[in-house]
Amino acid sequence: MKENLGLVKTVKSLAKILRGKPNPPASLADNEMLQVIYKRRSVRSFTSQPIPDDVFSAILEAGRLAPCTVNLQSWTFAIFDDALWQQTFDHSIPFHGNRAVIVISDSARYRQVLEDFPYCPLTEYTIAVVNASLAAMNMNVAAEALGVSSVMLSETGRSGILDAKYLKEKLNLPDGTVPLMTIVFGYARGAYPIMPPKLPMERILLHGQYQPSDRATMESWLEQMIAGYNASHLGTSFKTQLDIYQSKIGQAEDELNEMVFYRKK
Amino acid sequence: MKENLGLVKTVKSLAKILRGKPNPPASLADNEMLQVIYKRRSVRSFTSQPIPDDVFSAILEAGRLAPCTVNLQSWTFAIFDDALWQQTFDHSIPFHGNRAVIVISDSARYRQVLEDFPYCPLTEYTIAVVNASLAAMNMNVAAEALGVSSVMLSETGRSGILDAKYLKEKLNLPDGTVPLMTIVFGYARGAYPIMPPKLPMERILLHGQYQPSDRATMESWLEQMIAGYNASHLGTSFKTQLDIYQSKIGQAEDELNEMVFYRKK
Repeated sequence: MKENLGLVKTVKSLAKILRGKPNPPASLADNEMLQVIYKRRSVRSFTSQPIPDDVFSAILEAGRLAPCTVNLQSWTFAIFDDALWQQTFDHSIPFHGNRAVIVISDSARYRQVLEDFPYCPLTEYTIAVVNASLAAMNMNVAAEALGVSSVMLSETGRSGILDAKYLKEKLNLPDGTVPLMTIVFGYARGAYPIMPPKLPMERILLHGQYQPSDRATMESWLEQMIAGYNASHLGTSFKTQLDIYQSKIGQAEDELNEMVFYRKK
Repeated sequence: MKENLGLVKTVKSLAKILRGKPNPPASLADNEMLQVIYKRRSVRSFTSQPIPDDVFSAILEAGRLAPCTVNLQSWTFAIFDDALWQQTFDHSIPFHGNRAVIVISDSARYRQVLEDFPYCPLTEYTIAVVNASLAAMNMNVAAEALGVSSVMLSETGRSGILDAKYLKEKLNLPDGTVPLMTIVFGYARGAYPIMPPKLPMERILLHGQYQPSDRATMESWLEQMIAGYNASHLGTSFKTQLDIYQSKIGQAEDELNEMVFYRKK
């Protein structure tokens, strides 16, 4: 993958990023709740203002009340303030967020009373991952409704799926659970970041039969990703970020197999 | 598992269900957007009122703009009105919903331009399932914001993860994609259903180290599930529902393994 696009392509790609914006129908553009949903961004810079306990509770309540398959509630939320995060992981919450939630897929809890549930680990894991992710998004939206910003982490600071085994050990989690992500919460410092390059609607919709995206759209997206990283992430690039992923993903894959298919190993 | 609790336990369990409600901090109880999030329910009865195109577009836009790992947008949304659903599946949209979206985890699209992404299927699948589920929840909340109700299906009408291979064939999906669920959208007929029995907050939170839920809480939950099904789902029971799951999950597990680890087979 190219790390550098050259000046012309970089400028064109950055211009495309800047033109990207939510595209709601004009008739609904003034729906306030839609605005909150559309304006949400992953925020990585927070003020030191603490999140009050009631606000954090209201966010967690959105997680508790998320929809889930057969109402199994196959999730656990490990909650942290900075002191507990430091005590657990020996460093601050990533990006100096004020609170954090490690979202865990949990097929262990309901098995306490549904012992004869058959061992079909990949299906059960998938269902738990779906449910835990629904809860994560519901918390994220509830936070936005309360003026609290957040970012969901998959890797930064060993906080997500690429370090699931490490997190599982740190939290003393039982078989049947897999930590998926950390959501870091806080009040945003400054304006929200620019929207990252999103694929156009017609490229992610399927109407009837699957059509592979045309290559030109995907190449344009890739160029925007490269240009955007180079412009906004000082000291890193999209390729560097992918390289970090690629260097960790092999071990993560082995560990995840061990965690998901726990009875076989 | 018991199918029948006896009268006293049934009454007590139903009373517990009826006492269950969203529990936001009093200080935030009048936040309108939180109310929408907390009052959302899975709705399975819809009027014949059609969802206008602009409203459906606004819902899909929330999916397009959902957060996702490294902005990979590893999702595809197969969209349907009843005519297209009928044409594809030879029956109406489940519960006579007006529109439907099959939410598909899609690791195939970005690979068109990131060819050297290593083959770590379980990790990549997990990331795509997380992302697609975040998009699903964002669409669900956006729908509620617009007065549109919905239900996410995992099994009903061969529309979810337990029939992923069937859906993949029907939609001609490539390797690297897995259909996760169908979201059925429509305008709710009548009042929202009662909240299903949710575990208390302290049972799903982890503060420091994992503690298994006390068995009494889980048994109370199970009794509420049994009593609630018997009371509200005419002609079925929680055990029947679990039996349907159990009868399908073995084959689903084989098929899912085939789909997730597609290069090995």
